[in-house]
Amino acid sequence: MVLAEIDTPALVVDLDALETNIKRMAAWCADHGIALRPHAKTHKSADIAALQMAQGAVGVCCQKVSEAQALIDAGVDDVMITNQIVRPAMIERLLTLCARARLQVCVDDADNVDALAEAARRHGQELAVLVEINVGANRCGVAPGPPALALARQISACRHLRFAGLQAYHGPAQHLRSYADRQHAIDKAIAATRATIELLAQAGIACPVVAGAGTGSFAFEATSGVYNELQCGSYIFMDADYAQIRNPDDAPLDTFAHSLFILTTVMSCAQPGQAVCDAGLKAQSTDSGLPRVIGLSDVRYTGASDEHGVLSDPCSQLALGDTLRLIPGHCDPTVNMHDWYVGVRGGRVETLWPVTARGRIA
Amino acid sequence: MVLAEIDTPALVVDLDALETNIKRMAAWCADHGIALRPHAKTHKSADIAALQMAQGAVGVCCQKVSEAQALIDAGVDDVMITNQIVRPAMIERLLTLCARARLQVCVDDADNVDALAEAARRHGQELAVLVEINVGANRCGVAPGPPALALARQISACRHLRFAGLQAYHGPAQHLRSYADRQHAIDKAIAATRATIELLAQAGIACPVVAGAGTGSFAFEATSGVYNELQCGSYIFMDADYAQIRNPDDAPLDTFAHSLFILTTVMSCAQPGQAVCDAGLKAQSTDSGLPRVIGLSDVRYTGASDEHGVLSDPCSQLALGDTLRLIPGHCDPTVNMHDWYVGVRGGRVETLWPVTARGRIA
Repeated sequence: MVLAEIDTPALVVDLDALETNIKRMAAWCADHGIALRPHAKTHKSADIAALQMAQGAVGVCCQKVSEAQALIDAGVDDVMITNQIVRPAMIERLLTLCARARLQVCVDDADNVDALAEAARRHGQELAVLVEINVGANRCGVAPGPPALALARQISACRHLRFAGLQAYHGPAQHLRSYADRQHAIDKAIAATRATIELLAQAGIACPVVAGAGTGSFAFEATSGVYNELQCGSYIFMDADYAQIRNPDDAPLDTFAHSLFILTTVMSCAQPGQAVCDAGLKAQSTDSGLPRVIGLSDVRYTGASDEHGVLSDPCSQLALGDTLRLIPGHCDPTVNMHDWYVGVRGGRVETLWPVTARGRIA
Repeated sequence: MVLAEIDTPALVVDLDALETNIKRMAAWCADHGIALRPHAKTHKSADIAALQMAQGAVGVCCQKVSEAQALIDAGVDDVMITNQIVRPAMIERLLTLCARARLQVCVDDADNVDALAEAARRHGQELAVLVEINVGANRCGVAPGPPALALARQISACRHLRFAGLQAYHGPAQHLRSYADRQHAIDKAIAATRATIELLAQAGIACPVVAGAGTGSFAFEATSGVYNELQCGSYIFMDADYAQIRNPDDAPLDTFAHSLFILTTVMSCAQPGQAVCDAGLKAQSTDSGLPRVIGLSDVRYTGASDEHGVLSDPCSQLALGDTLRLIPGHCDPTVNMHDWYVGVRGGRVETLWPVTARGRIA
């Protein structure tokens, strides 16, 4: 089957580009002596997780218990949940997973530590817990320094919890366009993390894991001498948003290739200078901007409604039934809308992969 | 089970509000002597379609063949596809459905008419076809007047096609905030539609169906003497975007109540004046704006990332584990992210409905 025969809209992965991205990041991490634990919230796929681990990834990250459960059910055996798990029913499910895979979870609240400890005691498990510190994202995470120390002490004092280290991820910094801005933001994150590690060391508490970083910033964390585990996710796909971040010379970040596409069909050419394709808001997330059209320099995707995408086509290059590839604006929430990846190589369909944890948002 | 026991984030429907909305629109259409064919792209649910048809809806609309197929598989027997079906494989599936339900489809292209006619001939079916005209949305649809007449003639001349009428929907007009602006836009749509019907009549072609309208504009189309079938969808749920459109007295449109919510849990309170909930971009679409928080006047949802929602909470009203209800910004693409509706009445779970056509976007 060739591309043009696939029902559209469809989520298509260029397998050559995907494999190159996975190998390139794995090689970079090996060269720099740092562990890679890619974030599976990007792909939600047991197949892609297996490719990453075959190239040396120490495990994957997840954001939700149900997401972790889906991947563990599909054979992934080492998951860090880079998030707080608060609801009692979800803490129960977390502890059940503990018996089936190597598992870690984050905290930023003393009551949550108590709840995890009590559940771990009941289940007869030892749960590995990281303290999430706020290194500039201003979302979850306690302040670096004394508040982090207090939580680490509390965890260390719980018989059924094990203090696993620090989660120190700066999300918004990933998307800053300029290299200097990203470097500045991550320099501050590194300083806050280093100070916290030193405070913990003074209290006799070691940090086995110091984790964070994403596709926009990993080189800073990796060479800091502070972090020892990277959590990049989007590097495997690259999306239109990440394509806009810049290297020091202001060139686009071209370390990784676009491997994820929305395949779409032109379904109307009734207005002059315009075409309409069949991929709208239910085929891709536009939260970080509209998708980019591949291969037709004069054609731009200018507007999304639920089931339609409007394409500006001033030179009338498009005809009814034409197939196009779009680079989605934001890969993670786009992938979560689809049940299947259509894996293609050299323009031919080679495999179908389920989006294993699609919709697993609890 | 009460609300607070539901795993979050979850898609919750207030059944009392939903039923009231369905009855209110049904009664309004009955009073005004106009047919109602609600759009199922909003709910993608065979259960909700059945409620609508039990209240007198003549059928439902769908946007995609796979969506129609899912609903027909679940018992819906009358579907208008308010969209162009272009891909040969999808035209085949459309004709297969023709044998199982009353089906209509739209066109805006002469080659597409030929393709439909040839497929209908091969399947030994008579396919009902509407001509979509562009009444101001500037998306799909031929120009009103002579181009519409040409397509209607072509359809009428095909032995295996039946000209069913005109599709004349103005999407963007639904969301214009001011009543006067909506009225102005729809007045132009009505005039264009009326002129096209008259031109068709002069050519001896009758228009059995003249369809269009949405939740923001239906009163205009319904009382025009031109339209005879309404396609409102969002009225059953109302979302934060539709809550912003205004009546003539500039009061909010309060004919319909909010019945659709995202149930979410506070998962972090680590930053002062802020809480973080567990519903982000994978639980709801933010294309039409961020969700609104119910019942806490000082709490606002200020930012969505993939799995997190940041809540401004200046008075520290929220505590870890609290459950909140959000009104999503845009109901249709939000529903499409979820597998289940949790139907609640009086704060207790009464039913679970599958989102029958979730992800059916082809």
